[in-house]
Amino acid sequence: MPNIKGLSHVAIAVPDLEAAAQALAAKLGINAGPIKENPQQGVRLSYVDLGNARIELIQPISPDSPIAKFLERNPAGGLHHVCFNTEDLDVALAAVTQAGVRQAGKAGLNVHGDRIAFLNPKDVLGALVELEEKHE
Amino acid sequence: MPNIKGLSHVAIAVPDLEAAAQALAAKLGINAGPIKENPQQGVRLSYVDLGNARIELIQPISPDSPIAKFLERNPAGGLHHVCFNTEDLDVALAAVTQAGVRQAGKAGLNVHGDRIAFLNPKDVLGALVELEEKHE
Repeated sequence: MPNIKGLSHVAIAVPDLEAAAQALAAKLGINAGPIKENPQQGVRLSYVDLGNARIELIQPISPDSPIAKFLERNPAGGLHHVCFNTEDLDVALAAVTQAGVRQAGKAGLNVHGDRIAFLNPKDVLGALVELEEKHE
Repeated sequence: MPNIKGLSHVAIAVPDLEAAAQALAAKLGINAGPIKENPQQGVRLSYVDLGNARIELIQPISPDSPIAKFLERNPAGGLHHVCFNTEDLDVALAAVTQAGVRQAGKAGLNVHGDRIAFLNPKDVLGALVELEEKHE
């Protein structure tokens, strides 16, 4: 089994990261942290720490990014994926593969250097799920 | 300010609640709890407790439910909304209204009797946000 250990974050794809962070602060009173870039994933992003879990705001920096394609279909942005923590990404990916779940793209690294992988939404309730290797 | 106090849950709309719960258990090794019905919201649902936050699986029981309309556009299901906790729903709704955010529908109750309200996605980054009054 993939040994899921909690909900890391919920990601919202946005066309303009600075405007999105300002809107969340002004409308909901929640503040996004520093902007980081992840060239490997073709995105720039910022986290809103809600204490028990985080919101990730993601903006594409490459037209090839899956986020860019999501925004073509949803120009205003929207809920993009949910990320779960797992202790060992290799174990988790072997387990989900054995259960018939395909990966979406290749495993990579997030802005903190944690290993991550996405699962094919067609195999997981139509929802895009990310797995993130997190050592406590 | 709406005084947001954490991430309560991420909701996934599903066409078949029992099948969805079985799929999550078989594929990700995470288990949904008892099924509850919320006639006021026109849904039946089940929570997966991940420790720090929950996944909510929701199936429509009424064709008028917004979940039914979501599934017409996304027959396989998908990420539907994210829910934040707030200490006082009236205070939160007054604050977001003053900040120009409209409600989606009327405030109501969830299956635990907590007061809830949804915000118009057009006013919050294209994402459907639920606020839930939670007393710690």
